[in-house]
Amino acid sequence: MTVVQEHSPQKGESDSKARLRLWLRLLKASRQIEAELRERLRVEFASTLPRFDVMAALSRHPQGMKMSALSGVLKVSNGNVTGIVDRLTEDGLVVRAQVPGDRRASLARLTGKGHAEFERQAKAHEAWVDTLLKDVEGERAERLATLLNDVVHSIEEKEK
Amino acid sequence: MTVVQEHSPQKGESDSKARLRLWLRLLKASRQIEAELRERLRVEFASTLPRFDVMAALSRHPQGMKMSALSGVLKVSNGNVTGIVDRLTEDGLVVRAQVPGDRRASLARLTGKGHAEFERQAKAHEAWVDTLLKDVEGERAERLATLLNDVVHSIEEKEK
Repeated sequence: MTVVQEHSPQKGESDSKARLRLWLRLLKASRQIEAELRERLRVEFASTLPRFDVMAALSRHPQGMKMSALSGVLKVSNGNVTGIVDRLTEDGLVVRAQVPGDRRASLARLTGKGHAEFERQAKAHEAWVDTLLKDVEGERAERLATLLNDVVHSIEEKEK
Repeated sequence: MTVVQEHSPQKGESDSKARLRLWLRLLKASRQIEAELRERLRVEFASTLPRFDVMAALSRHPQGMKMSALSGVLKVSNGNVTGIVDRLTEDGLVVRAQVPGDRRASLARLTGKGHAEFERQAKAHEAWVDTLLKDVEGERAERLATLLNDVVHSIEEKEK
Protein backbone atom coordinates (compact mmCIF):
# COMPACT_ATOMS: atom_id res chain seq x y z
CA MET A 1 0.00 0.00 0.00
CA THR A 2 2.83 2.36 0.91
CA VAL A 3 4.55 1.46 -2.32
CA VAL A 4 1.43 2.23 -4.32
CA GLN A 5 1.03 5.58 -2.62
CA GLU A 6 4.68 6.43 -3.11
CA HIS A 7 4.36 5.67 -6.76
CA SER A 8 1.02 7.30 -7.41
CA PRO A 9 2.25 10.86 -8.05
CA GLN A 10 4.69 9.46 -10.60
CA LYS A 11 1.91 7.35 -12.10
CA GLY A 12 -0.29 10.46 -12.27
CA GLU A 13 2.46 12.37 -14.02
CA SER A 14 3.06 9.64 -16.58
CA ASP A 15 -0.70 9.40 -17.27
CA SER A 16 -0.80 13.08 -18.01
CA LYS A 17 2.27 12.78 -20.27
CA ALA A 18 0.61 9.84 -22.06
CA ARG A 19 -2.54 11.93 -22.59
CA LEU A 20 -0.46 14.84 -23.87
CA ARG A 21 1.29 12.52 -26.33
CA LEU A 22 -2.09 11.14 -27.35
CA TRP A 23 -3.39 14.66 -28.00
CA LEU A 24 -0.36 15.63 -30.11
CA ARG A 25 -0.70 12.45 -32.19
CA LEU A 26 -4.46 12.88 -32.51
CA LEU A 27 -3.93 16.41 -33.82
CA LYS A 28 -1.19 15.34 -36.21
CA ALA A 29 -3.17 12.37 -37.56
CA SER A 30 -6.33 14.38 -38.02
CA ARG A 31 -4.53 17.26 -39.81
CA GLN A 32 -2.72 14.81 -42.06
CA ILE A 33 -5.83 12.82 -42.95
CA GLU A 34 -7.79 16.03 -43.54
CA ALA A 35 -5.06 17.34 -45.87
CA GLU A 36 -5.13 14.06 -47.82
CA LEU A 37 -8.90 14.15 -48.18
CA ARG A 38 -8.83 17.81 -49.32
CA GLU A 39 -6.22 16.98 -51.92
CA ARG A 40 -8.14 13.98 -53.27
CA LEU A 41 -11.45 15.87 -53.44
CA ARG A 42 -9.64 18.60 -55.37
CA VAL A 43 -7.88 16.24 -57.78
CA GLU A 44 -10.62 13.68 -58.33
CA PHE A 45 -13.77 15.80 -58.07
CA ALA A 46 -12.50 19.39 -58.49
CA SER A 47 -14.25 19.99 -55.18
CA THR A 48 -13.51 21.04 -51.60
CA LEU A 49 -14.10 19.71 -48.09
CA PRO A 50 -16.63 22.47 -47.20
CA ARG A 51 -18.64 21.64 -50.35
CA PHE A 52 -18.53 17.96 -49.45
CA ASP A 53 -19.60 18.70 -45.86
CA VAL A 54 -22.57 20.81 -47.02
CA MET A 55 -23.70 18.06 -49.40
CA ALA A 56 -23.29 15.45 -46.65
CA ALA A 57 -25.49 17.48 -44.29
CA LEU A 58 -28.13 18.03 -46.99
CA SER A 59 -28.13 14.32 -47.87
CA ARG A 60 -29.14 13.59 -44.27
CA HIS A 61 -32.01 16.13 -44.50
CA PRO A 62 -34.03 15.33 -47.63
CA GLN A 63 -36.73 17.78 -46.48
CA GLY A 64 -34.19 20.61 -46.80
CA MET A 65 -32.22 22.78 -44.37
CA LYS A 66 -32.19 26.47 -43.53
CA MET A 67 -28.85 28.29 -43.85
CA SER A 68 -28.82 28.84 -40.08
CA ALA A 69 -29.24 25.09 -39.46
CA LEU A 70 -26.48 24.23 -41.96
CA SER A 71 -24.23 26.81 -40.40
CA GLY A 72 -24.92 25.36 -36.92
CA VAL A 73 -24.26 21.76 -37.97
CA LEU A 74 -21.05 22.61 -39.86
CA LYS A 75 -19.80 25.20 -37.34
CA VAL A 76 -19.12 27.58 -40.20
CA SER A 77 -20.39 31.17 -40.48
CA ASN A 78 -23.72 31.85 -42.18
CA GLY A 79 -21.98 33.89 -44.87
CA ASN A 80 -19.60 31.06 -45.77
CA VAL A 81 -22.42 28.53 -45.92
CA THR A 82 -24.48 30.84 -48.17
CA GLY A 83 -21.51 31.21 -50.56
CA ILE A 84 -21.03 27.45 -50.77
CA VAL A 85 -24.76 26.80 -51.27
CA ASP A 86 -24.87 29.48 -53.99
CA ARG A 87 -22.07 27.77 -55.91
CA LEU A 88 -23.65 24.32 -55.49
CA THR A 89 -26.89 25.84 -56.80
CA GLU A 90 -25.12 27.25 -59.86
CA ASP A 91 -23.73 23.76 -60.48
CA GLY A 92 -27.26 22.31 -60.38
CA LEU A 93 -26.48 20.18 -57.30
CA VAL A 94 -28.65 22.12 -54.85
CA VAL A 95 -31.95 23.95 -55.14
CA ARG A 96 -33.29 26.62 -52.79
CA ALA A 97 -36.99 26.97 -52.03
CA GLN A 98 -38.98 29.45 -49.95
CA VAL A 99 -39.89 28.43 -46.41
CA PRO A 100 -43.71 28.60 -46.08
CA GLY A 101 -44.58 31.34 -43.60
CA ASP A 102 -41.06 32.81 -43.43
CA ARG A 103 -40.31 35.12 -46.33
CA ARG A 104 -36.68 35.75 -45.39
CA ALA A 105 -35.64 32.12 -44.97
CA SER A 106 -35.03 29.55 -47.67
CA LEU A 107 -34.51 25.80 -47.54
CA ALA A 108 -31.62 24.22 -49.42
CA ARG A 109 -32.07 20.70 -50.77
CA LEU A 110 -29.97 18.39 -52.95
CA THR A 111 -31.30 17.97 -56.50
CA GLY A 112 -31.40 14.51 -58.12
CA LYS A 113 -28.06 15.34 -59.74
CA GLY A 114 -26.79 16.52 -56.34
CA HIS A 115 -27.79 13.24 -54.69
CA ALA A 116 -26.07 11.20 -57.39
CA GLU A 117 -22.93 13.35 -57.21
CA PHE A 118 -22.81 13.13 -53.42
CA GLU A 119 -23.21 9.33 -53.52
CA ARG A 120 -20.27 9.13 -55.93
CA GLN A 121 -18.08 11.36 -53.77
CA ALA A 122 -19.13 9.74 -50.48
CA LYS A 123 -18.24 6.30 -51.84
CA ALA A 124 -14.79 7.54 -52.89
CA HIS A 125 -14.35 9.38 -49.56
CA GLU A 126 -15.16 6.21 -47.60
CA ALA A 127 -12.65 4.24 -49.67
CA TRP A 128 -9.92 6.89 -49.13
CA VAL A 129 -10.51 6.84 -45.36
CA ASP A 130 -10.48 3.04 -45.42
CA THR A 131 -7.06 3.09 -47.09
CA LEU A 132 -5.65 5.86 -44.87
CA LEU A 133 -6.74 4.00 -41.70
CA LYS A 134 -5.94 0.51 -42.97
CA ASP A 135 -3.55 0.00 -40.01
CA VAL A 136 -6.52 0.12 -37.68
CA GLU A 137 -8.25 -3.24 -37.67
CA GLY A 138 -12.09 -3.06 -37.93
CA GLU A 139 -13.05 -3.98 -34.37
CA ARG A 140 -10.34 -1.74 -32.98
CA ALA A 141 -11.67 1.12 -35.11
CA GLU A 142 -15.11 0.50 -33.59
CA ARG A 143 -13.72 0.58 -30.03
CA LEU A 144 -11.68 3.68 -30.72
CA ALA A 145 -14.64 5.47 -32.26
CA THR A 146 -16.69 4.71 -29.14
CA LEU A 147 -13.91 5.95 -26.89
CA LEU A 148 -13.56 9.21 -28.84
CA ASN A 149 -17.32 9.61 -28.71
CA ASP A 150 -17.12 9.43 -24.91
CA VAL A 151 -14.38 12.07 -24.95
CA VAL A 152 -16.48 14.37 -27.16
CA HIS A 153 -19.55 13.92 -24.95
CA SER A 154 -17.69 14.53 -21.74
CA ILE A 155 -16.32 17.80 -23.16
CA GLU A 156 -19.79 18.82 -24.36
CA GLU A 157 -21.22 18.05 -20.93
CA LYS A 158 -18.69 20.35 -19.29
CA GLU A 159 -19.58 23.19 -21.67
CA LYS A 160 -23.27 23.17 -20.67
CA MET B 1 -15.05 -21.99 -45.04
CA THR B 2 -17.92 -21.28 -47.44
CA VAL B 3 -19.66 -19.34 -44.71
CA VAL B 4 -16.55 -17.25 -44.06
CA GLN B 5 -16.22 -16.46 -47.77
CA GLU B 6 -19.88 -15.56 -48.04
CA HIS B 7 -19.51 -13.20 -45.16
CA SER B 8 -16.25 -11.59 -46.08
CA PRO B 9 -17.59 -8.86 -48.39
CA GLN B 10 -20.00 -7.81 -45.66
CA LYS B 11 -17.17 -7.90 -43.13
CA GLY B 12 -15.06 -5.74 -45.47
CA GLU B 13 -17.90 -3.27 -45.79
CA SER B 14 -18.43 -2.99 -42.05
CA ASP B 15 -14.68 -2.48 -41.48
CA SER B 16 -14.71 0.42 -43.88
CA LYS B 17 -17.80 1.87 -42.15
CA ALA B 18 -16.05 1.48 -38.78
CA ARG B 19 -13.01 3.32 -40.13
CA LEU B 20 -15.22 6.07 -41.54
CA ARG B 21 -16.93 6.43 -38.16
CA LEU B 22 -13.51 6.49 -36.49
CA TRP B 23 -12.35 9.26 -38.83
CA LEU B 24 -15.45 11.39 -38.20
CA ARG B 25 -15.03 11.02 -34.42
CA LEU B 26 -11.31 11.69 -34.63
CA LEU B 27 -11.99 14.90 -36.53
CA LYS B 28 -14.74 15.97 -34.14
CA ALA B 29 -12.67 15.24 -31.03
CA SER B 30 -9.59 17.00 -32.37
CA ARG B 31 -11.54 20.12 -33.42
CA GLN B 32 -13.29 20.24 -30.08
CA ILE B 33 -10.13 19.82 -28.02
CA GLU B 34 -8.31 22.38 -30.17
CA ALA B 35 -11.13 24.89 -29.68
CA GLU B 36 -10.98 24.34 -25.90
CA LEU B 37 -7.22 24.84 -25.81
CA ARG B 38 -7.45 28.03 -27.92
CA GLU B 39 -10.08 29.41 -25.59
CA ARG B 40 -8.07 28.65 -22.46
CA LEU B 41 -4.86 30.11 -23.87
CA ARG B 42 -6.82 33.25 -24.72
CA VAL B 43 -8.53 33.55 -21.34
CA GLU B 44 -5.70 32.47 -19.05
CA PHE B 45 -2.63 33.75 -20.92
CA ALA B 46 -4.06 36.29 -23.42
CA SER B 47 -2.26 34.17 -26.01
CA THR B 48 -2.96 32.04 -29.07
CA LEU B 49 -2.24 28.51 -30.26
CA PRO B 50 0.19 29.67 -33.02
CA ARG B 51 2.18 31.67 -30.42
CA PHE B 52 2.22 28.64 -28.13
CA ASP B 53 3.35 26.38 -31.00
CA VAL B 54 6.19 28.74 -31.95
CA MET B 55 7.38 28.90 -28.33
CA ALA B 56 7.15 25.09 -28.04
CA ALA B 57 9.31 24.65 -31.15
CA LEU B 58 11.86 27.21 -29.90
CA SER B 59 11.98 25.54 -26.47
CA ARG B 60 13.12 22.34 -28.21
CA HIS B 61 15.87 24.24 -30.08
CA PRO B 62 17.83 26.25 -27.51
CA GLN B 63 20.47 27.02 -30.18
CA GLY B 64 17.80 28.94 -32.13
CA MET B 65 15.81 28.34 -35.31
CA LYS B 66 15.64 30.04 -38.70
CA MET B 67 12.23 31.29 -39.84
CA SER B 68 12.25 28.73 -42.66
CA ALA B 69 12.84 25.88 -40.16
CA LEU B 70 10.08 27.16 -37.86
CA SER B 71 7.74 27.47 -40.80
CA GLY B 72 8.57 23.91 -41.89
CA VAL B 73 8.04 22.40 -38.43
CA LEU B 74 4.77 24.24 -37.85
CA LYS B 75 3.46 23.89 -41.42
CA VAL B 76 2.61 27.58 -41.44
CA SER B 77 3.73 30.14 -44.06
CA ASN B 78 7.00 32.02 -43.57
CA GLY B 79 5.12 35.33 -43.42
CA ASN B 80 2.85 34.13 -40.62
CA VAL B 81 5.76 32.77 -38.60
CA THR B 82 7.67 36.05 -39.00
CA GLY B 83 4.65 38.02 -37.74
CA ILE B 84 4.31 35.78 -34.68
CA VAL B 85 8.04 35.90 -33.92
CA ASP B 86 7.99 39.71 -34.28
CA ARG B 87 5.25 40.01 -31.69
CA LEU B 88 6.95 37.56 -29.32
CA THR B 89 10.10 39.67 -29.70
CA GLU B 90 8.20 42.85 -28.82
CA ASP B 91 6.93 41.06 -25.71
CA GLY B 92 10.52 40.22 -24.72
CA LEU B 93 9.90 36.46 -25.01
CA VAL B 94 12.03 35.87 -28.10
CA VAL B 95 15.26 37.40 -29.39
CA ARG B 96 16.53 37.35 -32.96
CA ALA B 97 20.22 37.13 -33.79
CA GLN B 98 22.15 37.19 -37.05
CA VAL B 99 23.19 33.84 -38.56
CA PRO B 100 27.00 33.86 -38.97
CA GLY B 101 27.80 33.73 -42.68
CA ASP B 102 24.24 34.37 -43.85
CA ARG B 103 23.30 38.04 -43.78
CA ARG B 104 19.70 37.56 -44.80
CA ALA B 105 18.83 34.88 -42.25
CA SER B 106 18.27 35.32 -38.52
CA LEU B 107 17.91 32.83 -35.70
CA ALA B 108 15.05 33.15 -33.22
CA ARG B 109 15.60 31.98 -29.65
CA LEU B 110 13.57 32.12 -26.44
CA THR B 111 14.82 34.65 -23.89
CA GLY B 112 15.01 33.71 -20.20
CA LYS B 113 11.62 35.35 -19.75
CA GLY B 114 10.37 33.42 -22.79
CA HIS B 115 11.53 30.11 -21.32
CA ALA B 116 9.86 30.82 -18.00
CA GLU B 117 6.64 31.91 -19.73
CA PHE B 118 6.60 28.85 -21.96
CA GLU B 119 7.15 26.55 -18.96
CA ARG B 120 4.18 28.14 -17.23
CA GLN B 121 1.94 27.79 -20.28
CA ALA B 122 3.13 24.27 -21.13
CA LYS B 123 2.34 23.10 -17.60
CA ALA B 124 -1.17 24.55 -17.82
CA HIS B 125 -1.60 23.13 -21.34
CA GLU B 126 -0.65 19.65 -20.15
CA ALA B 127 -3.11 19.89 -17.26
CA TRP B 128 -5.92 21.03 -19.61
CA VAL B 129 -5.27 18.11 -21.97
CA ASP B 130 -5.15 15.75 -18.98
CA THR B 131 -8.60 16.94 -17.91
CA LEU B 132 -10.07 16.91 -21.42
CA LEU B 133 -8.85 13.34 -22.01
CA LYS B 134 -9.53 12.09 -18.49
CA ASP B 135 -11.86 9.36 -19.91
CA VAL B 136 -8.84 7.75 -21.55
CA GLU B 137 -6.98 5.68 -18.97
CA GLY B 138 -3.17 6.15 -19.03
CA GLU B 139 -2.11 2.86 -20.57
CA ARG B 140 -4.86 3.09 -23.14
CA ALA B 141 -3.69 6.59 -24.04
CA GLU B 142 -0.21 5.15 -24.56
CA ARG B 143 -1.53 2.38 -26.86
CA LEU B 144 -3.70 4.82 -28.78
CA ALA B 145 -0.83 7.25 -29.25
CA THR B 146 1.30 4.42 -30.66
CA LEU B 147 -1.49 3.36 -33.00
CA LEU B 148 -1.99 6.91 -34.29
CA ASN B 149 1.75 7.20 -34.75
CA ASP B 150 1.63 4.14 -37.02
CA VAL B 151 -1.21 5.74 -38.97
CA VAL B 152 0.76 8.98 -39.40
CA HIS B 153 3.88 7.10 -40.50
CA SER B 154 2.05 4.91 -42.97
CA ILE B 155 0.53 8.03 -44.59
CA GLU B 156 3.93 9.73 -44.68
CA GLU B 157 5.45 6.62 -46.28
CA LYS B 158 2.84 6.74 -49.04
CA GLU B 159 3.59 10.39 -49.75
CA LYS B 160 7.26 9.74 -50.44
